[in-house]
Amino acid sequence: MSGEDAPAQQQNAEEQKPQQQQQDGEPKSESPKTENKPEATPAEPVAAAAAASGEAAAAAAAPADKPAEEDTFSYRALVLTGYGGYDKVKLQVKKGKPALKSGEVMVRVKACGLNFADLMARQGLYDRLPSPPVTPGMECSGIIEAVGEDVTDRKVGDKVLVLNRSGLWQEVAVVPISHTFPMPEGMSFEEAAALPVNYITAYMMLFDFGHLRPNQSVLIHMAAGGVGIAATQLCKTVKDVTIFGTASASKHEVISEGGVTHPIDYRTRDYVEEVRKINPKGVDIVLDPLGGSDTHKGYNLLKPMGKLISYGAANMLSGQKKNLFAVAKTWYQQFSIHTLSLCQSNRAVCGFHLGYLDTELVIDVMNSLLELYQEGKIKPRIDSTYHLEQVGDAMRRMQERGNIGKIILTTEPMKEEAKKEEAKKDEKEKKEDKKKEEKKKEDKKKDEAKKEEKKEEKKKEEAKKDEKKPEEKKVEEKKVEEKKEEAKKEEN
Amino acid sequence: MSGEDAPAQQQNAEEQKPQQQQQDGEPKSESPKTENKPEATPAEPVAAAAAASGEAAAAAAAPADKPAEEDTFSYRALVLTGYGGYDKVKLQVKKGKPALKSGEVMVRVKACGLNFADLMARQGLYDRLPSPPVTPGMECSGIIEAVGEDVTDRKVGDKVLVLNRSGLWQEVAVVPISHTFPMPEGMSFEEAAALPVNYITAYMMLFDFGHLRPNQSVLIHMAAGGVGIAATQLCKTVKDVTIFGTASASKHEVISEGGVTHPIDYRTRDYVEEVRKINPKGVDIVLDPLGGSDTHKGYNLLKPMGKLISYGAANMLSGQKKNLFAVAKTWYQQFSIHTLSLCQSNRAVCGFHLGYLDTELVIDVMNSLLELYQEGKIKPRIDSTYHLEQVGDAMRRMQERGNIGKIILTTEPMKEEAKKEEAKKDEKEKKEDKKKEEKKKEDKKKDEAKKEEKKEEKKKEEAKKDEKKPEEKKVEEKKVEEKKEEAKKEEN
Repeated sequence: MSGEDAPAQQQNAEEQKPQQQQQDGEPKSESPKTENKPEATPAEPVAAAAAASGEAAAAAAAPADKPAEEDTFSYRALVLTGYGGYDKVKLQVKKGKPALKSGEVMVRVKACGLNFADLMARQGLYDRLPSPPVTPGMECSGIIEAVGEDVTDRKVGDKVLVLNRSGLWQEVAVVPISHTFPMPEGMSFEEAAALPVNYITAYMMLFDFGHLRPNQSVLIHMAAGGVGIAATQLCKTVKDVTIFGTASASKHEVISEGGVTHPIDYRTRDYVEEVRKINPKGVDIVLDPLGGSDTHKGYNLLKPMGKLISYGAANMLSGQKKNLFAVAKTWYQQFSIHTLSLCQSNRAVCGFHLGYLDTELVIDVMNSLLELYQEGKIKPRIDSTYHLEQVGDAMRRMQERGNIGKIILTTEPMKEEAKKEEAKKDEKEKKEDKKKEEKKKEDKKKDEAKKEEKKEEKKKEEAKKDEKKPEEKKVEEKKVEEKKEEAKKEEN
Repeated sequence: MSGEDAPAQQQNAEEQKPQQQQQDGEPKSESPKTENKPEATPAEPVAAAAAASGEAAAAAAAPADKPAEEDTFSYRALVLTGYGGYDKVKLQVKKGKPALKSGEVMVRVKACGLNFADLMARQGLYDRLPSPPVTPGMECSGIIEAVGEDVTDRKVGDKVLVLNRSGLWQEVAVVPISHTFPMPEGMSFEEAAALPVNYITAYMMLFDFGHLRPNQSVLIHMAAGGVGIAATQLCKTVKDVTIFGTASASKHEVISEGGVTHPIDYRTRDYVEEVRKINPKGVDIVLDPLGGSDTHKGYNLLKPMGKLISYGAANMLSGQKKNLFAVAKTWYQQFSIHTLSLCQSNRAVCGFHLGYLDTELVIDVMNSLLELYQEGKIKPRIDSTYHLEQVGDAMRRMQERGNIGKIILTTEPMKEEAKKEEAKKDEKEKKEDKKKEEKKKEDKKKDEAKKEEKKEEKKKEEAKKDEKKPEEKKVEEKKVEEKKEEAKKEEN
């Protein structure tokens, strides 16, 4: 997934933005809808269905014979149009069939996974996503619709999981064959889209950097999130591992059932104290997606030979748009360590981010994960599935930490009725957002008013004190007069 | 080996320093000799022999019955008398039999291992050694001569390896039973004394922090040192590991035979370039005992998912006494890393120092190592063996990197003839040291003289320049005059 092996954005696919979005800078809706223009719903559902049945293989693989299809080929794609709030990701229609280079395959996308990196990217906090306009998306599942030259071990009709640097939140994606993995029997498209990023991340952290062994203990932050649930399941594949998992209280039942030994409500409790109560010596591994001051806390919770594994800076995310204060605070508090201190405590600090790793390095890991899936040892938990049109809601749910498990985007078109309901919901949400903003402003005003009151009170108190100490006041006054006199003398 | 489980210095053993050393602050010899006083060689060789045969068990375990032995019991011990050069470690005689607490054993020491931490400690750079006067020594081998209460799985006569925070460079050592490990059949006392620190360090670095796997590559600095040779042998237990080892050219044949794939002469070559020539992408693991700028180089040599393991700061050691410049430089250049940078490169930075680790944490590792020894997969390489009297020479050899493998101290008393030769050698070495110092002074003088010459030349050249550019000079002079005039005006 590094720069080297990331395919170019499908350059030959001409972007065609809905007129409404082209005209105004201020988007009208958080969940953009493609209007029912001819190019929005062309032949591709048919093509997809055909591809799914494997019958369209020859047609798709030999596009040169049918120039007419080239012209009519179009597909919907989510596009990050600029950095900012949820509304910056818009649903657009791309036209023209992407060309396939040697070793590449074209995938008819069925489901896409949502990741924290996508939220960071939307705010301009993730440098591995090319500059907007760009289609985000690091993972998806789908069916191979066409193969390029020299592709021998994938064929049209194969169901695959896909891992890529970006560009997968669209109905059609072109990727190198090495970025695709055959889906095991019985795996749903949602599960397949939920697996790559979270499970590879959890696996490499726990078993490569962490070197997790029986009887060890692990602290998993955001234990109800995608990586959290993956990590919990993977910990359970090792004998007698104690799992501390932080999540808000409402999620404790689910994560306990999933394998977390000690759920901790980080909103009402100090998780450091809670861990120490049970494991006074601390833990062997801390998985830290938060950054900032939490990294310091995690480091101090490590036993000797313990490993802190940092894999993000979720603390930087505060609000829809980039919050400079949160970013600066997280950056400022970001953990930095001297090797001499590491030696004296026998600890390791590791950093992991799948986005910066070549996909060739994760092939073995992916294969191990697919084996574990087939053995029934891991199974992605789907929190919710959204249509491409609802990407804003999906991102909001993740950012506000509403999910338990993975949030999925499906490429299945929304029904007309649902669209209407969605529009109503959007209106409602917009109103709520407005209310929230107004409330914020009011709160701010109130705060300021309170501050003013306090200042006034303080002044009054000081005035009282002055009254109580007239002697002191007189002395002060005398001094001031003396100074004035001296100044006069100098002037003369 | 942490503060908790480290036994107190054998407080009841009364120290009795040879008179010569008590009288003067300036020691007379680098390799201190115990004079042939009665207490220097008392009954203990006999006791040791008896203990070795296992017959003296009852006598040793029940000292209350034989008060006479209490009085005559004495043993030789190396004592760090203050921080400084090689001569700060003196051979003294301790009197009185150490008392055994519950769970402790008394070991008649046969051989001791020398470690870099001992060199650091002598210079006051290792905070895990109690303040002088103190007996250094983190590892030894010997025979159990007495056992305390509640000791069931060791008995008098057992041959053991011992690992301790300090206090093992003496003929008799008292340690908790958990710090002793039975010696396997066929292992010599020298091998047993050479094994604990180096092999545990190498094992935990490679297999716990490093998680070394087949086909990976490792950079081993000081590959001819104790840890270097241990690490090489342990790497060879994993399939197809490529080993880069730095050492001076004269040691390459030996380390190649030992298993180093690519020996690099760090004195004449840039090891970073040499590694990159063979492995352009770098290595998976760097074992770094050097610190300072070498840690930066090692870090930059890491592949993605690579681990840098720092386990010392040998670069701080420069000369016999603490070299403040070398310490400050190493400290200043010491590697410090931000977790965000680690994430973006998918790397780990680990710190290891056995001296800061509880011995209970290494019991499993020690047992694995003893198994590997019995399987013939590892075998400590003894570089040289010195008598306690020669500890200065032993330390010098290690510090000047003369050794290939482990340097051992034996408690076997030196023969009279050897002592005389040693005295001659000492004289010679002292003379050489003096010569070196004189040479240094002369060099310094020469340097200063050269500097002076250069200054003179520079002055002359400048003078010439001035002559060549009379116009410029005039302009300068004019300016000065103008300034003077202005000053005069202001005064008026």
